[in-house]
This record gives sequence, C-alpha cells and structure tokens, in this order.
Amino acid sequence: MPIQAISWSPSGAVRIIDQRALPEAEITRDLESAEAVADAIRQLQVRGAPLIGIAAAMGLVAATREQRTAPKAAFVPRLRELAALLGAARPTAVNLRWALERMVRVAEAAPADGPPLWERLHAEATAIWEEDRAMCRRIGEHGQTILNDGANVLTHCNTGALATGGIGTALAPIYLAHEQGRRVHVYVGETRPLLQGSRLTAWELLHAGISCTLITDAAAAALMRQAKVDLILVGADRICANGDFANKIGTYGLAVLARHHGVPFYCAAPSSTVDATLADGDLIPIEQRAQAEVTVMAGRPTAPEGVVALNPAFDVTPARYVTGFITDRGIVQPPFTS
Amino acid sequence: MPIQAISWSPSGAVRIIDQRALPEAEITRDLESAEAVADAIRQLQVRGAPLIGIAAAMGLVAATREQRTAPKAAFVPRLRELAALLGAARPTAVNLRWALERMVRVAEAAPADGPPLWERLHAEATAIWEEDRAMCRRIGEHGQTILNDGANVLTHCNTGALATGGIGTALAPIYLAHEQGRRVHVYVGETRPLLQGSRLTAWELLHAGISCTLITDAAAAALMRQAKVDLILVGADRICANGDFANKIGTYGLAVLARHHGVPFYCAAPSSTVDATLADGDLIPIEQRAQAEVTVMAGRPTAPEGVVALNPAFDVTPARYVTGFITDRGIVQPPFTS
Repeated sequence: MPIQAISWSPSGAVRIIDQRALPEAEITRDLESAEAVADAIRQLQVRGAPLIGIAAAMGLVAATREQRTAPKAAFVPRLRELAALLGAARPTAVNLRWALERMVRVAEAAPADGPPLWERLHAEATAIWEEDRAMCRRIGEHGQTILNDGANVLTHCNTGALATGGIGTALAPIYLAHEQGRRVHVYVGETRPLLQGSRLTAWELLHAGISCTLITDAAAAALMRQAKVDLILVGADRICANGDFANKIGTYGLAVLARHHGVPFYCAAPSSTVDATLADGDLIPIEQRAQAEVTVMAGRPTAPEGVVALNPAFDVTPARYVTGFITDRGIVQPPFTS
Repeated sequence: MPIQAISWSPSGAVRIIDQRALPEAEITRDLESAEAVADAIRQLQVRGAPLIGIAAAMGLVAATREQRTAPKAAFVPRLRELAALLGAARPTAVNLRWALERMVRVAEAAPADGPPLWERLHAEATAIWEEDRAMCRRIGEHGQTILNDGANVLTHCNTGALATGGIGTALAPIYLAHEQGRRVHVYVGETRPLLQGSRLTAWELLHAGISCTLITDAAAAALMRQAKVDLILVGADRICANGDFANKIGTYGLAVLARHHGVPFYCAAPSSTVDATLADGDLIPIEQRAQAEVTVMAGRPTAPEGVVALNPAFDVTPARYVTGFITDRGIVQPPFTS
C-alpha cells in the first residue's frame, strides 16, 4: 500500500509526514497556521508539486478556523493575505499558485458568509485533494500501456505517494502495474542534493513491495549504455504551453541521455501542472536554494570552507525530448491550453 | 601552490595525506608496511590512478626496509608477494599494476644484491614519482592550447595534485594557465558517492587560489544548455588501445552531454594510464564498491534499510566522444600502442 502523505488532523490542522526526517524517522506534524504550512513547504517537510498545492489549500482552511465567524468583507482580504504568504514559499511549482488562486476565487464567488463560507473552503480544499488523488489514479491507468511485464524504469526525485494526494504522478503507473501483478523494476536516482530519490522514493517503493535499485545520479548514463533501462518516467513542477517543463535538477540531463540511447522518456503530471500563461520554458522561474544543501551533509561539511556552490532546484527540459506526457486525460502531446 | 600528496617520511615510510579526512581535517599518515599501503588504497586514503601507482611502488620499498640485507634469491620472491598484495587493492586503474610490474622487473634484472638492490628499488620508486611529476607538468603544458583566457572548464572527480605525484592530470593545464596569469574558472562536479569533487578538487583549487564553483553532478547538463561550459577536462584510470577509457562513474554521461551540446571533451592522462593489452573498453574490469558508500553519509543512513544500491566506481567512455587525449607527449588520438 502506498503511504498517505497528507490528511486533516482531528482538530482541523494540516497533518503531514515530515519528509525531511525520512527514512530515519517517520514523524507526523500538525500544521496549525499558514506560517507553519509555509515554513514546512520552504523546508521541504512537505514537497512535491501536487502535494504542496494541496497542503497550501488545506493550510488556508486550517489558518482561518478562528476567523470562521468573521463577515465575508473581513474574511476574504485576510484569506488573500494568507494566500500571498503561502504562494511565496516556493517559486517554481505552479500547482501551489493554482491551488491558492482556486481557493481565493471560490471565497470571492461564494454567496455564503461566516461559518458556511469557511465550510465551503474546507470542502474546496478537500476537493482539491480528492481530485488529485483521482488524477493520480488516472495517470496510473493511462500509463499502463507503456509498462510491459518485466520493465526496467528509471526515475528521478520523488513523484510518488509522498509527492501527491494519491499514488503519485510518475510512480502511479508503477504502483498500478504492481497492483495488477505485472513485474516492474525501478532504478531510483538518488537525486542530490537532498536525496529525495534515496530518502523518499526508495522508501515508499520498499514500503509497497516494489523492486528497486538505488543509483547515484551520475550512474544513469552507464546503465543506459548497458541497455538496462527500458524507459524513463519523471514528474514535473510546471509545464508550459509548448510542452517545455521544469522538474528536479538532473531531469534535463536524463532526457538528453535518453534521446542519445533511444530510451523513451515520459513526463507524468496532473492537469494542474500546466501553466498555459507561459509560452516556453525560458520563462519558468527557477528556485535557487541554499548552498549548504550541497556543501553540508548530516551536519558535517563535505566541501572546503569558503567554496561557492550553485544549487538550482530545477532545470528545464524542452518538449522535443519528451516521448509523451502522461496526464489524467491520457498520454498527450503539446501544445497545452489549460 | 598545489598541495604535495605523497613523500618519503624521515624513516622511509610512505607519507600520505589521508584524503578521506579532507576537507574537515588535514591528517598525514606514515604507512610502514605493504598491508598499510594496500589498506590506504582500498579505503581511498590515497587515490587517483597515478598516485596509487606511486604509493604502491614506494610501499614496496618501505615494506622491505627490514629485508634489505637479504640475498636476492629470497628478496625477489618476497617482493613479488608484496606486489601481488598491493596489485589486488583496486582493479580498475592500470597505473597500479604498471608501477608494481616495473619495480619487480627492476629487481629481477638488477645485478645487485642486498642493500644495493634495495637502494636501486628506492631510486626506482622515487623515479616513478619524479617522472609522474614531470609528466603532469608536460600534460599541463600541452593543455595550454585549449585554455583561452576566461575559459570555463567543467571537471569531475579529482585529477589534481591529490591524484598524482605532481600538479595533476586534468587539473595540470588549469594550474599552469593560472600560474601564467590567465583566468580560468572551474565548475567542479561534486562526484557522488564519495564527493572527491567537493572534498578534494574544490579544496585544492581554493588552496591554489583558482576560482571554482561547486555543482551537483546532475546540474552539469543544465549548465551546458546555458552555454556556461567551454570545455570538459577529465582524467582516466585506464585507456585502451582503441582509446576507450575508464574514469570515475559519471564521466560517460558528461561525454554524451558534451557531444550533444557541442562542448569539447578532453581526457588528460600520463602515458602510464595506457593499457595497450586491452583492445577496447568492454574489457576493462569495473570495480564495484560497497553499497554503504551510496546509502550512508557521515555515519547516518540516507536510504531505507534493506534497499539495494549499485555502486560501480567507474564507467567506460568510448573513444569517439573524446576531442583529444592530453598526454605528456602532446594532444593525441588513438590508437595507442604503449
């Protein structure tokens, strides 16, 4: 069974698994305020493009529990403030902005006031989560056609149950194939600097009983040359109108290597990942994260004092490298309009 | 000034910098026996294809200090035993075997006996070291033609003063260009799993006052796409007759990415790295190292218990990806005969 990465706590807080502590410890946190949710997103306690959208929407609801009796004229401006705070937590994934805008639009349009308005938002956040869960399942179903029995899949970062409200994006076809009794083996790129591959993907695949082998990111090319990889499956943090997409740093290199070795390369994502307002990938803002993520491991320096490190969290893969986009609407090709 | 990675201790032991402790601590170790040298090589306290050849040759001398009065008929078989022990420490780099065979051949052919024979070996080990130092310098000189003022060079692993008896192989042209007042900037791939790039290359470049930027291995592709890399310079652990070569895992991927982006890709190595007995790269034995190098960092698990990790220390880059081999004899092309 895939893990459940998010839920409501009994008191209405946002309950998450602290993904920074995995795989050493399985710690659950209840996030009570918008600040706490924004901090958790910034620190990657909760991460994965779809999941941070869900967490932010749920965070708006948890954060306004005390204001639920406020009149709409006071409530909506407060909601907009909190949405701005949450939206600034991470710049690249579009799902975050998409979920927050949807919540604010619902509040603005709702005829209700006071508790019924807040209840409407609670239902909307839950709907965003439920829709994501359903989209994951549909991505998984549409992805079945590309997974033969015995397939060796290479993936990068974490795009599974820990990245979504359901069974993941790029891992969803793998979970479903496994559920249906087909054999799938997954090569998991460890995904430096934060090791989402080794810490999270390997952890959730083992948890689900799916066969996997961990590799360093730089070992992927040799595996492809040895014809050990049948296809590559990755997620996306933002997909532009022309199909260029941002995903975890290292994705673009895998796409080039896949092309060079004749390995099919698929991007799996829910519709909420499409940002049709951006014509192409050059327009995607790329988050630059702290140098210490590269220069320090487990509290110990792994690089000399004073070294400069570049730490872009994402890179952009042009659409021409992508064999197909596995979405909740099928395996599709750009352009994308919404 | 580049660092000095190896020397004779006053008592005739092999004095090394323990490269596993860098950059946190600069620890010098005196290796008194062949076992101690073999352990240091296996544990990567001393590493780099040319340097382990030198260390092994010096180790033979240090280990036979007590037997220096033995007759040749007893001394040479003992030397062969110790050479076999040292030669088994790591399988991929050919320089190790090359240096040991040279030492044994000299002992076999020497007309001397007793202390003069041992002195002859001491001189031979010192000659191997001195020749390597001179070869590094010549590699550096031949590499000047490819380094324009302001060049941005990407390198992988450590091929500098810490990998050789002199100023390095792939780093030698960079050290010389810097010495001559030309500006060179180095992108250093951190080189998982053991981070020789961040721990060693960044450390020795900073030490020498050369501008560098540390990146994760998977970030190299995006840098090339942004046209921030003018050329790639790597070392080699074994070069076959046809020019296929083994080097640190990740090198092959960089070669493919370089080809794709039109970035020149050079391999720098001393003549001792050529193994003309191997027709092509498929014949190179690839060392598989412990899984824990991938799954544990600074003593803490970074992957779930029970996960399987692949940890090949090297990959093979076919000769067709190489713009040129920078050797002590010039920038050359295969085939190589010795």
